[in-house]
Amino acid sequence: MKELEALILQDVQTDIPLLTRVAEHILRSGGKRLRPLLVLLGARSFGTLDLPILQAAQVVEYLHTATLLHDDVVDGADMRRSQQAARTIWGNEASVLVGDYLFSRSFRLMVESESLKVLDVLANASAVIAEGEVAQLTTANDTTTSEEAYLYVIRSKTAALFAAACEVGGLIAGQSETVTNALEQYGANLGIAFQLVDDYLDYASSAEAMGKKAGDDFRDGKITLPIVLAMRRGDDEERSFWQRTLEEGEQKDADLEHAADLLQKHDALTDTLIRASGYADTARAALSDLPDNDHRDALEDVIDFCVDRAY
Amino acid sequence: MKELEALILQDVQTDIPLLTRVAEHILRSGGKRLRPLLVLLGARSFGTLDLPILQAAQVVEYLHTATLLHDDVVDGADMRRSQQAARTIWGNEASVLVGDYLFSRSFRLMVESESLKVLDVLANASAVIAEGEVAQLTTANDTTTSEEAYLYVIRSKTAALFAAACEVGGLIAGQSETVTNALEQYGANLGIAFQLVDDYLDYASSAEAMGKKAGDDFRDGKITLPIVLAMRRGDDEERSFWQRTLEEGEQKDADLEHAADLLQKHDALTDTLIRASGYADTARAALSDLPDNDHRDALEDVIDFCVDRAY
Repeated sequence: MKELEALILQDVQTDIPLLTRVAEHILRSGGKRLRPLLVLLGARSFGTLDLPILQAAQVVEYLHTATLLHDDVVDGADMRRSQQAARTIWGNEASVLVGDYLFSRSFRLMVESESLKVLDVLANASAVIAEGEVAQLTTANDTTTSEEAYLYVIRSKTAALFAAACEVGGLIAGQSETVTNALEQYGANLGIAFQLVDDYLDYASSAEAMGKKAGDDFRDGKITLPIVLAMRRGDDEERSFWQRTLEEGEQKDADLEHAADLLQKHDALTDTLIRASGYADTARAALSDLPDNDHRDALEDVIDFCVDRAY
Repeated sequence: MKELEALILQDVQTDIPLLTRVAEHILRSGGKRLRPLLVLLGARSFGTLDLPILQAAQVVEYLHTATLLHDDVVDGADMRRSQQAARTIWGNEASVLVGDYLFSRSFRLMVESESLKVLDVLANASAVIAEGEVAQLTTANDTTTSEEAYLYVIRSKTAALFAAACEVGGLIAGQSETVTNALEQYGANLGIAFQLVDDYLDYASSAEAMGKKAGDDFRDGKITLPIVLAMRRGDDEERSFWQRTLEEGEQKDADLEHAADLLQKHDALTDTLIRASGYADTARAALSDLPDNDHRDALEDVIDFCVDRAY
């Protein structure tokens, strides 16, 4: 991971000061580097670690970072990881264009891998993420969103990159199809569990733990699983409440608290965590196709890390 | 070109209605399809025309279209090609994310080409365009921008894709390095000429001919070659005028007219066209390395089309 940090920080030193400043700001803002870690663990499970693997890890982090820059523009977010969002400092324009640069740079790096299979997996993940982002725009503020529609969004926008990260690790390490499939399944299920825990935390945690304000999803009118469950289990009066606050965006001071009460009443937060645990278990089961070594243990630890954030 | 239209319109039929609507709106808004035409002519010069060539043309058009969607967000533009800009109808969010989708989709299609050389050229062009876009953000509203700095921006944001379009046409048609280099040189110089004529037209043409309001560059405080020349040739009072209107963005009713007078006084528009003709000549000269046939004639016609828009 240290080598990766050095590689990234060297790579964003460009001739265009604005580009370097914005890219450094977001890339050094204390992200967990979870996705590139998955690339390295997927590959290290089998003993190799050279430039192509580091570059694949870099690609995955760039794709993720580009998405964050654009998400903040789309959400009008002021904060990101307890810091001012890039758009707050340099404007939406710079965030859109530096995001585009990181996308383009990641494809440039992918081509250097000279592996059509790796390119295929990463380019496909990138297209699926973009589809998921647009689909999310459609479900935003729509309280009739079904659990199925919601799962489609998070499979696309979050789980696809987790899955691709794990799979390319195995591909570059030259593993069998059984192993790369197992890694992909592990990543896809881990990604869903990770996103569900995120959705839970947005209602359950303090600002400190999230690096952004708790309740952001509520204020943005985002329809996440807790809302889908509470909406389905609520009565007409409750549904009117969700429609007013999330669809029409008419929110009063006490609404977030009332929302939390309704989620509690219908076990919507608890059940979101239970579903997250289910996906975590599926991720764990996929690891049985991998050789039993320290790196497989580390992949198990990543599951625990993702789920334990909730506690 | 008809086959290409059909391919594009079929390709944007997705399961996500918002995605399809926005993509159709911008892709069917009467663009000239100049860049994909260059791919086809570059390849047809030598007799081949099959799916990989059509897909490369599609990739080039998607990259261009994604840039337009994001440019309109960055510029806050209301109109695009005499129609409402996508952002005016569906919002900045949809424009950012559908732009991202078209970028991703184009990389997905590139990978299908299974040619690392084609991938390399297109991914490189995409990264150079993104750099140019960020660099343009830096020169925007900066009246001290040099001619050199301006040329760097248009080489990156416009000429790189023209060059890549021509080069991949030749590459897919399996041409020699001499020929693909000639195509690349042709495209790069044509792209600069094209952009310079665009810059000229923004001050010289009627709204009808441009499909957007004349004077948009002035209102946005964009520093284009006419401004760079007039600024260099003007006195202190004139420089103060450009600083007030373009740097500080303080514009009054008669300012656009006064700007046009200053450009006229210093031959800034005429000299912009003379420089455009110079690049057009260089593009024409590059064609001498190509076999003398109908498709080479068509590539010459494209030069005339680009430059004659000014008259």
